[in-house]
Amino acid sequence: MTLSEIERIQALLPQWVESSREQCSIGKVASYIPELSKSPIGALGIHLIDSNGLSISEGDTDLSFTMQSISKVFTLILALMDNGEDVVFDKVGMEPTGDNFNSMLKLELVQPGIPFNPLINAGAIAISSLIAGKDPAEKSARVLDFLRLLSNNSSLDYDMDVYRSEADTANLNRSMAYFLKDNGVLQGSVEDVLEVYFRHCSISVTCADLAQMALVLAHNGKNPTTGEQLIPRRFVQIAKTFMITCGMYNASGEFAIHVGLPAKSGVSGGILSLVPGRYGIGLVGPSLNRKGNSIAGVALLESLSREFEWSLF
Amino acid sequence: MTLSEIERIQALLPQWVESSREQCSIGKVASYIPELSKSPIGALGIHLIDSNGLSISEGDTDLSFTMQSISKVFTLILALMDNGEDVVFDKVGMEPTGDNFNSMLKLELVQPGIPFNPLINAGAIAISSLIAGKDPAEKSARVLDFLRLLSNNSSLDYDMDVYRSEADTANLNRSMAYFLKDNGVLQGSVEDVLEVYFRHCSISVTCADLAQMALVLAHNGKNPTTGEQLIPRRFVQIAKTFMITCGMYNASGEFAIHVGLPAKSGVSGGILSLVPGRYGIGLVGPSLNRKGNSIAGVALLESLSREFEWSLF
Amino acid sequence: MTLSEIERIQALLPQWVESSREQCSIGKVASYIPELSKSPIGALGIHLIDSNGLSISEGDTDLSFTMQSISKVFTLILALMDNGEDVVFDKVGMEPTGDNFNSMLKLELVQPGIPFNPLINAGAIAISSLIAGKDPAEKSARVLDFLRLLSNNSSLDYDMDVYRSEADTANLNRSMAYFLKDNGVLQGSVEDVLEVYFRHCSISVTCADLAQMALVLAHNGKNPTTGEQLIPRRFVQIAKTFMITCGMYNASGEFAIHVGLPAKSGVSGGILSLVPGRYGIGLVGPSLNRKGNSIAGVALLESLSREFEWSLF
Amino acid sequence: MTLSEIERIQALLPQWVESSREQCSIGKVASYIPELSKSPIGALGIHLIDSNGLSISEGDTDLSFTMQSISKVFTLILALMDNGEDVVFDKVGMEPTGDNFNSMLKLELVQPGIPFNPLINAGAIAISSLIAGKDPAEKSARVLDFLRLLSNNSSLDYDMDVYRSEADTANLNRSMAYFLKDNGVLQGSVEDVLEVYFRHCSISVTCADLAQMALVLAHNGKNPTTGEQLIPRRFVQIAKTFMITCGMYNASGEFAIHVGLPAKSGVSGGILSLVPGRYGIGLVGPSLNRKGNSIAGVALLESLSREFEWSLF
Repeated sequence: MTLSEIERIQALLPQWVESSREQCSIGKVASYIPELSKSPIGALGIHLIDSNGLSISEGDTDLSFTMQSISKVFTLILALMDNGEDVVFDKVGMEPTGDNFNSMLKLELVQPGIPFNPLINAGAIAISSLIAGKDPAEKSARVLDFLRLLSNNSSLDYDMDVYRSEADTANLNRSMAYFLKDNGVLQGSVEDVLEVYFRHCSISVTCADLAQMALVLAHNGKNPTTGEQLIPRRFVQIAKTFMITCGMYNASGEFAIHVGLPAKSGVSGGILSLVPGRYGIGLVGPSLNRKGNSIAGVALLESLSREFEWSLF
Repeated sequence: MTLSEIERIQALLPQWVESSREQCSIGKVASYIPELSKSPIGALGIHLIDSNGLSISEGDTDLSFTMQSISKVFTLILALMDNGEDVVFDKVGMEPTGDNFNSMLKLELVQPGIPFNPLINAGAIAISSLIAGKDPAEKSARVLDFLRLLSNNSSLDYDMDVYRSEADTANLNRSMAYFLKDNGVLQGSVEDVLEVYFRHCSISVTCADLAQMALVLAHNGKNPTTGEQLIPRRFVQIAKTFMITCGMYNASGEFAIHVGLPAKSGVSGGILSLVPGRYGIGLVGPSLNRKGNSIAGVALLESLSREFEWSLF
Repeated sequence: MTLSEIERIQALLPQWVESSREQCSIGKVASYIPELSKSPIGALGIHLIDSNGLSISEGDTDLSFTMQSISKVFTLILALMDNGEDVVFDKVGMEPTGDNFNSMLKLELVQPGIPFNPLINAGAIAISSLIAGKDPAEKSARVLDFLRLLSNNSSLDYDMDVYRSEADTANLNRSMAYFLKDNGVLQGSVEDVLEVYFRHCSISVTCADLAQMALVLAHNGKNPTTGEQLIPRRFVQIAKTFMITCGMYNASGEFAIHVGLPAKSGVSGGILSLVPGRYGIGLVGPSLNRKGNSIAGVALLESLSREFEWSLF
Repeated sequence: MTLSEIERIQALLPQWVESSREQCSIGKVASYIPELSKSPIGALGIHLIDSNGLSISEGDTDLSFTMQSISKVFTLILALMDNGEDVVFDKVGMEPTGDNFNSMLKLELVQPGIPFNPLINAGAIAISSLIAGKDPAEKSARVLDFLRLLSNNSSLDYDMDVYRSEADTANLNRSMAYFLKDNGVLQGSVEDVLEVYFRHCSISVTCADLAQMALVLAHNGKNPTTGEQLIPRRFVQIAKTFMITCGMYNASGEFAIHVGLPAKSGVSGGILSLVPGRYGIGLVGPSLNRKGNSIAGVALLESLSREFEWSLF
């Protein structure tokens, strides 16, 4: 009797999680947001859901962590749903930068000074300003509601310790936001925009939540269980394309070569990834490589993609 | 009776070629290689081949043009076949740069000073130095033979006017090569490396030649007619991934959003693209947008991809 | 009978002011602070005082204008008097940048990320944070008092319209200040530091005020009339050196070749300059060249320096 | 009886040379030209000549070393004498860069892509191309003759080992030269220009030779012994100004604050400096600080300038 792919995954995961976990000692937990430095450096967990709702969970999947940059995929989608492509791509470009996710060089060097793409910090701040809503509270509530819907988890909420820690120390993001304001990219109050941004970065999730959100993207915006179209197909396509070209910071090119799946990482160590038409994947491993991606998480996704030939290319 | 996709393409192409051609007047023919400035600014042609050898040809497909940067996909593949992944990726990275294809900024700013990827000029020069062969003549002959094999056109040859024009004026490429030499990326004589590089850039092709080469990539390295595996699967995967992330210079991200196909352009106005498992596509339109890609060619590929939902994403 | 130098200056100035004034039409009045755009584009005035208190006034010397960057010379001096060289040069460097006065590139590119010198915006903001005082009001009052003392003009005060205009629109300076905060250069509240900075930039002066301040520098910190040492000799030396290497933004090198005098310009069109041991010079001409210096003012100083061989070199 | 200044210098120098020499162990001998790495790391010597021909020699003044970047002051002067200011400053600017002496960033980033000043490598290469002469040999001979005249040493000649070592390894200078060629700054053959450049960098001198050349600059182009005007006054003024703003690489600003004298350093460890109207100074100390200047030499000049109040400012 041949095993189905999901049975083979289930069989192989325990040892792969353990071998990938060995990489944790090489990396470092993010410290630029003080609260994040408390994350367990040796943790690694993965949750995978298929179209029929079957799921596999391995490793430290009990761990809650903040979405950080992973949330940028969904604020991009919400901004597209709120404004359409033309408005959004008037404020952010579509190109990878080759620079660090928090670099400001190209804002000064390349005209017009709009962020190169919506997944670097400058771009995600610009996107935060495009979320519909009369004030930061309403905008933030709309983002949270959207993520509750996609994750099918109505209790999704902020980690207020991380939120305050980030809001207090995020001078580089503030610097970026004022630069964007000067370049005419941001409207209204910089602090209002940043509040929206800091809030969506500090939404607390588990691997299962990420996997559920990813599953919707894997099915082109449809919840495969209910059949409901939660996101227009075109905006999922845009999001997945950016996840390939810019999703893993300035290691996206390398990840595309080695894994070849749409993915988005956060400095909390989370990674959301997906196999189109098939799986939603949520992963966490707080120890980061020098580009800011979960070092063990990337290793684990490489093993999976190679073994099961998941690369899109 | 429903039309097959290829019949629908055939029916739609004439009007699309004409409407895309209107963009030619907005762009400019490349002039930095003097010989290229003679190209017909209003030309546009496309050739498409499917797995069964059926082909469609529309527009100015009689035009011969030099491969320029399109050849970089195949020197990368040959360098991988000659040296393996480890040696190649010790000399070039895997990341898009966000900079112009001929920029030298990151060679100075980012350590180690290796080219960010094999499809920018600096990277392709580094790749040229990795082609096996005892001297530039032998290396160049191996590249030409490889392209003759892939295009199934044994008469493929250099455009010596373009070669000489480029070799005489390519001071920026020379500058880059000496910088790479200083950074320890190039071994041996800089002029020898550049001879190989200028030669493969000046191989003269038609749209049909590019389509035939692309068809091999579309079939993971196999010639679909003969069934012969001309390129190992993994190296095609690497090439296709780079064509998505870096194939259209620093407009690759935008092309991925709007077209979503692996592609590589050249300043001669050529574009090689492919629909995985299905079509090889060769295209030419010498009028370039400001990022250096065929302005009408990109428009035409957008129309095709949107209509037939060819995006990988 | 031979004329003294000051008699010759007096004789020549009227025609030189008129011929230099012709340049005004080539330049532009600063507009990045909205209030400054109201300055009279065709104005040019100069005031010169010698050690005996003899003065010459020619052209539009009735014009009041804000000190803008000229004030940075004196906040540097006050910060040195308040903290000593070691503390000050731990926060700002001593090198010209070659970049625009409001560039942030080197803050990101060059470690440690301290401003290259105290006369570019980033450096002057860092200097503002070093002025002694329990709050922005006290710090600002100390700067104003210091300038009243040096100018021998107790009614020197802020132009509150310019202050508000700058405070409202200075998002790039805000961006810089938050970047400096992130780099550990600024202590305390960014907005507090910026208030001090915006205030000293908006102190309103005439050419005669600048000339009086310059005269103190020309006499190594001593008021030549009273003999009182208002600034320690060493700090005047430091200030004059920076005025040579960095005083005219990224046209300082050219100014040193063509004029060869310590000078500091402001985007209001003011220039403070001096002939060591001899003259204090105040000048205004709101029409700026593309580097941000008074276009007619620079021309006038070139004529004077060449005729009277004032270059230090 | 009071001592004259030169007697006081003579009395103080032995102990100052010894105490400055202690810094040698902190620095490093230049290694990018292999031959230079053989220089004695602990050496320090100084030679000083006054207007009457009185001279003081202390420390390792027997050491011969190559002029390297010090020669750039004199090729600039010769290019000015050969072409006039307009032609020269059409090819090189007048601004310090803030970047390393061998940086190419601004050639790409700042339009027009001419070197910022004649004392960085790119600028000096551009200057080499402006020396009159029918071929590299004649141009080089004219430079050598000029330096023999200024140093009053007819046996001044090349160190051919250093010349060959530099010519063989100077790929970064070659890269720069081809970039300049591409930017339209260089005419004719790049290798011809580089031959002139490498030759003048490898002229071998002693401290006494440098002091003699400096003495001519200190007297505005006149040999104080013979009264002969060897260089037009204006071109000496230009040279001295550049020595203040750009003479010590990207530590020129700091040197101006701490020493305040025109000076030019070379990676061989040599420094030429002068006290206007009074002294010519030649110095050598091959151990370099991280900006490329003689670490002990700078320390010694600081002690002298502070003690005798030599700063121009």
